[in-house]
Amino acid sequence: MSILFHPQRYFNTIGTHEPQAFICEGESILTSTLDARGWNNSGKSASSRGNPMTGPIFIKGACPGDMLEVRLESVVPNRSWGWSMNMLAPNVVDPETVSQLPEAELVRWRVDMGSKLASWPESEGALGRLKLPVQPFLGCLGVAPPRGQAISTTTSGVYGGNMDFSGFTSGVVCYFPVFAEGALFHLGDGHAVQGDGELLGTGIEISMDVRLSFRIHKDRAIDWPRGETDTHLFCIGNARPLDQAFQHATSEMFRWLQQDYHLTAQETSLLLGQAAEYQIANLYNPAYSVACKIQKLYLFEICSISRG
Amino acid sequence: MSILFHPQRYFNTIGTHEPQAFICEGESILTSTLDARGWNNSGKSASSRGNPMTGPIFIKGACPGDMLEVRLESVVPNRSWGWSMNMLAPNVVDPETVSQLPEAELVRWRVDMGSKLASWPESEGALGRLKLPVQPFLGCLGVAPPRGQAISTTTSGVYGGNMDFSGFTSGVVCYFPVFAEGALFHLGDGHAVQGDGELLGTGIEISMDVRLSFRIHKDRAIDWPRGETDTHLFCIGNARPLDQAFQHATSEMFRWLQQDYHLTAQETSLLLGQAAEYQIANLYNPAYSVACKIQKLYLFEICSISRG
Amino acid sequence: MSILFHPQRYFNTIGTHEPQAFICEGESILTSTLDARGWNNSGKSASSRGNPMTGPIFIKGACPGDMLEVRLESVVPNRSWGWSMNMLAPNVVDPETVSQLPEAELVRWRVDMGSKLASWPESEGALGRLKLPVQPFLGCLGVAPPRGQAISTTTSGVYGGNMDFSGFTSGVVCYFPVFAEGALFHLGDGHAVQGDGELLGTGIEISMDVRLSFRIHKDRAIDWPRGETDTHLFCIGNARPLDQAFQHATSEMFRWLQQDYHLTAQETSLLLGQAAEYQIANLYNPAYSVACKIQKLYLFEICSISRG
Amino acid sequence: MSILFHPQRYFNTIGTHEPQAFICEGESILTSTLDARGWNNSGKSASSRGNPMTGPIFIKGACPGDMLEVRLESVVPNRSWGWSMNMLAPNVVDPETVSQLPEAELVRWRVDMGSKLASWPESEGALGRLKLPVQPFLGCLGVAPPRGQAISTTTSGVYGGNMDFSGFTSGVVCYFPVFAEGALFHLGDGHAVQGDGELLGTGIEISMDVRLSFRIHKDRAIDWPRGETDTHLFCIGNARPLDQAFQHATSEMFRWLQQDYHLTAQETSLLLGQAAEYQIANLYNPAYSVACKIQKLYLFEICSISRG
Repeated sequence: MSILFHPQRYFNTIGTHEPQAFICEGESILTSTLDARGWNNSGKSASSRGNPMTGPIFIKGACPGDMLEVRLESVVPNRSWGWSMNMLAPNVVDPETVSQLPEAELVRWRVDMGSKLASWPESEGALGRLKLPVQPFLGCLGVAPPRGQAISTTTSGVYGGNMDFSGFTSGVVCYFPVFAEGALFHLGDGHAVQGDGELLGTGIEISMDVRLSFRIHKDRAIDWPRGETDTHLFCIGNARPLDQAFQHATSEMFRWLQQDYHLTAQETSLLLGQAAEYQIANLYNPAYSVACKIQKLYLFEICSISRG
Repeated sequence: MSILFHPQRYFNTIGTHEPQAFICEGESILTSTLDARGWNNSGKSASSRGNPMTGPIFIKGACPGDMLEVRLESVVPNRSWGWSMNMLAPNVVDPETVSQLPEAELVRWRVDMGSKLASWPESEGALGRLKLPVQPFLGCLGVAPPRGQAISTTTSGVYGGNMDFSGFTSGVVCYFPVFAEGALFHLGDGHAVQGDGELLGTGIEISMDVRLSFRIHKDRAIDWPRGETDTHLFCIGNARPLDQAFQHATSEMFRWLQQDYHLTAQETSLLLGQAAEYQIANLYNPAYSVACKIQKLYLFEICSISRG
Repeated sequence: MSILFHPQRYFNTIGTHEPQAFICEGESILTSTLDARGWNNSGKSASSRGNPMTGPIFIKGACPGDMLEVRLESVVPNRSWGWSMNMLAPNVVDPETVSQLPEAELVRWRVDMGSKLASWPESEGALGRLKLPVQPFLGCLGVAPPRGQAISTTTSGVYGGNMDFSGFTSGVVCYFPVFAEGALFHLGDGHAVQGDGELLGTGIEISMDVRLSFRIHKDRAIDWPRGETDTHLFCIGNARPLDQAFQHATSEMFRWLQQDYHLTAQETSLLLGQAAEYQIANLYNPAYSVACKIQKLYLFEICSISRG
Repeated sequence: MSILFHPQRYFNTIGTHEPQAFICEGESILTSTLDARGWNNSGKSASSRGNPMTGPIFIKGACPGDMLEVRLESVVPNRSWGWSMNMLAPNVVDPETVSQLPEAELVRWRVDMGSKLASWPESEGALGRLKLPVQPFLGCLGVAPPRGQAISTTTSGVYGGNMDFSGFTSGVVCYFPVFAEGALFHLGDGHAVQGDGELLGTGIEISMDVRLSFRIHKDRAIDWPRGETDTHLFCIGNARPLDQAFQHATSEMFRWLQQDYHLTAQETSLLLGQAAEYQIANLYNPAYSVACKIQKLYLFEICSISRG
């Protein structure tokens, strides 16, 4: 059974705000998120725009220096339409190409959770025939950052934030460093669909119903958000330029495999060198985000670990 | 039937060199490439190290302003071992992590084209149990660059070069802008296996047998290397930082879809925004390389084109 | 006559904190700042480390959308020694050079405000003969950022922050956008001496006595910190990579000259193209900082403005 | 007495081309350079556009592994006008500002070597009153690059090239690594005036008369171009992003002070940390250029060296 949490207020920063819900390890919490403009499941404005966050959720027992495990048990759109911008953002193209981009406008998409397809509302024209598989994920999620900071939900950092990584979807387990008492978990900015790089500066933005549960790993400092799917481990780096986000993600994976899988620096290097995968989450936000991934298959092969 | 081309000399730059072979449109050419250190199929040194190139191949009728289509009909290792470095390169990790990297050494891998698996030569230790699927590709390929330049095979640019993109594999069709009479195609630097990003500064480096054919598209200037697989179109950008390589690749795809698939700027933006994929080829060479990809499936859906 | 403000507490973020002092336009305020480790004029720890801030100072009448003018009337060290690290930071050198850097340690310098020279405390060795001119400045200063954020004093942004720009010295007038009621001005992180780029990750860090006054320019939004010396106008950009900080600073100067000096885009371009100067403030902090400068002399020449 | 060298042909790449002049150590050579579009002292086109180079000059006795010293004895415009573009280049401003830039056009400037002032040809308008001090320098100069490469004169690297650094002016001594027999020195792309960053993509472009002499330092490998003025030492880094150019320049200075001035890593760090200066040469070319400088005054103070 899940605890129900109906948000009464939303925050446009991720920070050491007054907790809006309290939860224990092992309990599930069922809540909802607004879209990036603050529109709810009825399309009504319920908060100011700019990625308003549901939360913070206070996880009892979480202390600075711990690692917070977050299970995204269910991440599902709660309305039948989303919106996106309709033009490439100026910073995803060459400076010389910028002047060829007409001004961006907001457009609406149909999002059908029956067929799990997103489509263009008008049938004429090229887009009228386009069907996009829906892969709902949370664009912005994370814990209160270090030093008591409150940081805009436009950006991201070691604490998570607006990463716009399509991997934060139902069934994924993710890990965050804890910097504040209770960890103070925030979530929002749901996307029904989004390509790599978030080229429009938005995905198909949508409000969501989300069910989560938490676990605390005591005294287990990590440096960047991590996660695990059925098939992969991943680490996320957030920074500009993309090179630096890449370096953060790679360095974190380099540490993870040595610490938890007992590989040497050489073994880790050889494995990552031949098998690392990367996914560019966004090249739009103030900090860009990239995920370094490794197939768990290889770790089953080479480590004395049993299959999950 | 293929023309046989046994290279007599190799070049460590891609440039307007004396052609080593001549070919007409539609003919196939069968040749071989040395590995990155200049070692051939017997492991003997046959050229100076640093990505020695097979070629240039002069394609009759190719003129500046044309587009050269290159079919990689077959890209297959011609020996049973490869080598790689054994430590992450300093520029793929955080500056603070660099001092934790022991000095890199060259190590050997078994490459078995029967099982299509690469493996570690010693059975003890974690790596002894590792099996990596072989995906042989050409790390360095391209045409003579503009202005009569001759550019080191360590780097890359609009003309192709040392992109280390694992997508240049058997069955792929790629496209290059033509800057010199005869296009002057170069190839080499075969890799049996390589993860994204080329984190060790090498893949599993190996000598290859390669069969290619060419087609000329007259008066069809493109800005960056492009390609096509069974499932995807791709464009490659080469630059530092990675952001700029990303911008080049995205801008090229933006142009391609508008020109050849008759989409508007808005339609192209909406499609790429929701469906673009990126693959980071290398974050090691003087110019980094990244591919922007789109599934052909979406173009079948929305354009008046028949399935290949 | 100046208002005296003895700070009772310090903040390690710049944010919408409870004001510690209130001031009207035209009044001067005399206060003191701790050094970057929180050490005061007696070398005692008076706050936690990491650029503790004096303030916020509430400027009566300042509202979001205004521009805050800050006169740095006097910025003077209040003790006779400072400290710095003693080794180049890993991110200011090539990745390949990082492993040649011994671990950094904290060292002390003599700072003599009589001779206005900083020197090494031991007379033997090469450094024993070094005399460095003291140019005291505030490394970290700015207003409460937008959205109610509270941002670590390690970094910087549109609101100012840890820019480590040696131009924030006695006699300089600087301008900040106002995002919060009262502007909420913060200051600290004094440096007695620092080269361009802040290569050690510190200057010669020292506690300070500072006298300031403020003026409010109503309804006059600016995008980035600006300033004015006897000879130059300057705009500061804060971002990574340095290219982007440079773009911010240049774009802000481009706007300033058009808006306030009534130059066209062409006139501004031609002037900046032939006469712009840049100073790299730091290449160390999470956001790098660079100043774009133009000599006022040229504006006297070409605009219908009277000299100072 | 100087050797006269009237160029008969020009190269648009820097490479291992046929020498156009031969010179011994200690001799002076007097020659001329075309402007960036290939226009000579009469404004006639004498070569194709794109920084045509005078040279290569073969310096007898220079071998790979040596260091070439180049004295720029005299760098003087040989006509009374220059040209520049008239609009900021797209990559020097924010992506969001690009669309505010009208298309760039070529404009002419008066260059008067009597008064040493550049001015706008029309007296009306703001620019009619502008007087800019002429500081003539060579935008593009360097030696044949390694590996027998021939590299476009639009870009730069370890061998020099299109650095657009205003410090390459009369009286300066500069140093280049030698990669080819005879060093093969190239020069051209004179600028009468240019601000930092080369914001227009050009300075005031002009043809020049240049007198040079050379000296060879045997077996003295350096990594990047270096130089010396009356007051400063400087090292230049060429790369994108600017961060990396900065890292190259800083690393080269770090090596230089340790090798030639016998400072320890700590002494070098402390000196550079408090006294380094940087000049951003260009943020326009395919590789950006930045100079790291240190006042010779400090080296006189702390090293056992006599004043030049």
